[in-house]
Amino acid sequence: MFTLLATDSQTLARRGRLVTPHGAIETPVFMPVGTQGSVKTVHPVELEAIGAQIILGNTYHLAVRPGVDIVKEAGGLHAFANWSKPILTDSGGFQVFSLGKLRKIKEEGVHFQNHVDGSPMFLGPETAMEIQAGLGSDIAMLFDECPPHPCEASYASKSLDLTLRWARRCREWVDKNQPMTGGGRQLHFGIVQGSSYAELRARSARELVAMGFDGYAVGGVSVGEPEPEMMAGVENSVPHLPMDKPRYAMGLGTPPQMIEMVARGIDMFDCVLPTRLARHSTAFTDEGSMNLKNNCFARDFRPISEDTHPLCQGFTRAYIRHLIKAGEILGLRLISLHNLHFYLSLLSRARTAIEGGYFSEFRREFTSKYKNHTSEA
Amino acid sequence: MFTLLATDSQTLARRGRLVTPHGAIETPVFMPVGTQGSVKTVHPVELEAIGAQIILGNTYHLAVRPGVDIVKEAGGLHAFANWSKPILTDSGGFQVFSLGKLRKIKEEGVHFQNHVDGSPMFLGPETAMEIQAGLGSDIAMLFDECPPHPCEASYASKSLDLTLRWARRCREWVDKNQPMTGGGRQLHFGIVQGSSYAELRARSARELVAMGFDGYAVGGVSVGEPEPEMMAGVENSVPHLPMDKPRYAMGLGTPPQMIEMVARGIDMFDCVLPTRLARHSTAFTDEGSMNLKNNCFARDFRPISEDTHPLCQGFTRAYIRHLIKAGEILGLRLISLHNLHFYLSLLSRARTAIEGGYFSEFRREFTSKYKNHTSEA
Ligand SMILES: [Zn+2]
Ligand SMILES: [Zn+2]
Repeated sequence: MFTLLATDSQTLARRGRLVTPHGAIETPVFMPVGTQGSVKTVHPVELEAIGAQIILGNTYHLAVRPGVDIVKEAGGLHAFANWSKPILTDSGGFQVFSLGKLRKIKEEGVHFQNHVDGSPMFLGPETAMEIQAGLGSDIAMLFDECPPHPCEASYASKSLDLTLRWARRCREWVDKNQPMTGGGRQLHFGIVQGSSYAELRARSARELVAMGFDGYAVGGVSVGEPEPEMMAGVENSVPHLPMDKPRYAMGLGTPPQMIEMVARGIDMFDCVLPTRLARHSTAFTDEGSMNLKNNCFARDFRPISEDTHPLCQGFTRAYIRHLIKAGEILGLRLISLHNLHFYLSLLSRARTAIEGGYFSEFRREFTSKYKNHTSEA
Repeated sequence: MFTLLATDSQTLARRGRLVTPHGAIETPVFMPVGTQGSVKTVHPVELEAIGAQIILGNTYHLAVRPGVDIVKEAGGLHAFANWSKPILTDSGGFQVFSLGKLRKIKEEGVHFQNHVDGSPMFLGPETAMEIQAGLGSDIAMLFDECPPHPCEASYASKSLDLTLRWARRCREWVDKNQPMTGGGRQLHFGIVQGSSYAELRARSARELVAMGFDGYAVGGVSVGEPEPEMMAGVENSVPHLPMDKPRYAMGLGTPPQMIEMVARGIDMFDCVLPTRLARHSTAFTDEGSMNLKNNCFARDFRPISEDTHPLCQGFTRAYIRHLIKAGEILGLRLISLHNLHFYLSLLSRARTAIEGGYFSEFRREFTSKYKNHTSEA
């Protein structure tokens, strides 16, 4: 299902194609996040127009509301959300662990109270796979425990053992039930854990690969750790993953971080930054981000950036600032759309650079031009 | 500029064409309201796709924020709001009078504190025309006093006298300054006032017509009066207006009200109901309105209505309900777009019916099928 089309000579960057039941995905790829069955503020027609190949759905959120039964009755998440291209669903594990005191981790899985009405729910390896089979996603993620940062070695090791036992139970459920979607076989990705411990990352990757999955994610990154540790988490995982399977760094990242991850052999990304920062009026450009609420844009009649999408065209910084100040939703829409287009285009540019054999130049040029304004995040 | 293309034999309904500097408008027409330079939640590309021919802008709101200077620097409201078709601006009078204790009416105009930062501002006949010239709208409305409902005969008469003196000053300002937009002459509409008094309505219309404007609005309707009085306000005004000028009923109305107004010789409508009711999750259909928040739609996998626009297609009531419950903006977007499309299509259907000589049948069929749910307004 995954074909390597080109590899970079100076880095680990790869250009690939992943075939899923609802279509092929050109990698490296950015996947917009549709937590509750909608990429925030954006219409599916717009998502297609800005080049989205695959979107994410969140098992936890959809299971809590509207409930898996309703999505199944609608004909699956594709039909429900009016999106005919590929969908990846997470397992719900990450959200469940974030519930803090509202959840209890046991061998069988996690008991928790949901954040909407507090009613008791349960997610375990089998239920997580069953729900994702019901949602009909093209790629389902294994149910894992994502340890917090920082994390002691003993806890990280015990947590990894649990994650591996759960992975085996996911594998068994999938082998027994053979979930299908869109007339094809649902794909399943294992998740490499192990916190900041290289030997745990290696063990996690090796054991998952022995079980055999369609792709491998690096989890437990972008959970509050400093950037060098995030990079190390990926660097310690990738060498133990097979060349012929896609690799997915979960929940990443800023534009330069994604390019750095591509250089380290990552193929797939998802991140809420484009839409979350839009809610803070922050727009991405090649020079870094800008906060359009700032006074300096009141009479700035240029577009957000020169390289703008048809759906952004004709809108000035001054107008978007006015919309934000006036509380008009079109302002939020335009920034969200622009940011998603920026992320999608950035990965498209990376693909072209790898194909053209100039990825290192592209990486150097992009990261030197881009100024991080992390304070605006 | 206004051409009568067809008149109905059984009612006062007319099918016309109004040529403005930014293009022709087929009437009867519904004009979506873009109070702050944006039709709420909707992208200009979508507005065009659902058949909007002209939109409204609010002088008061734009003068308060971002300020007329910024809109002028942007190249006028068309450039600022990225909308190349016709725009009608109101004079700001209606909003200013709604400020209650924050405003003082004098002979020269109205002194008031704006609702955003409370700073003192002034609007009079000349300033209102000057601002609208600066905004570069295709149709500018005269500055009038809109008396409240109910209104005693003596106040209504005194108020009308003031409105007529202001109308003369607007006429003089326009004659002297000859405002242009988009390479053509800006059009100016007088506003018939007179509250619920037939003789005042008649006097108002006659005197405005004597001054000579490009069109005539019926004002002081839809200000809280019962529907029969609203109809009477129009019925008492229209006979005194020339056949060869467009007639505009301001701030109207529900779908059946618009059709009734068309039957009474009205050519132009503006109304915030499509977007305002969308914010209350209410969608319009030929059978009346429905509140998509209701439980009964949780597993209703039909579209809002059969006759749906391409941008509505593929979205079920169950999905839109889920989006609303989950606080996803796409839900608000889809209902807003659907409602605007419903209003625009309704007037388009009325145009076709007048052309085809079956307007009375259309009117009868539509109003008998449509059930008003005013409680949802
Ligand atoms: Zn853009
Ligand atoms: Zn619709």
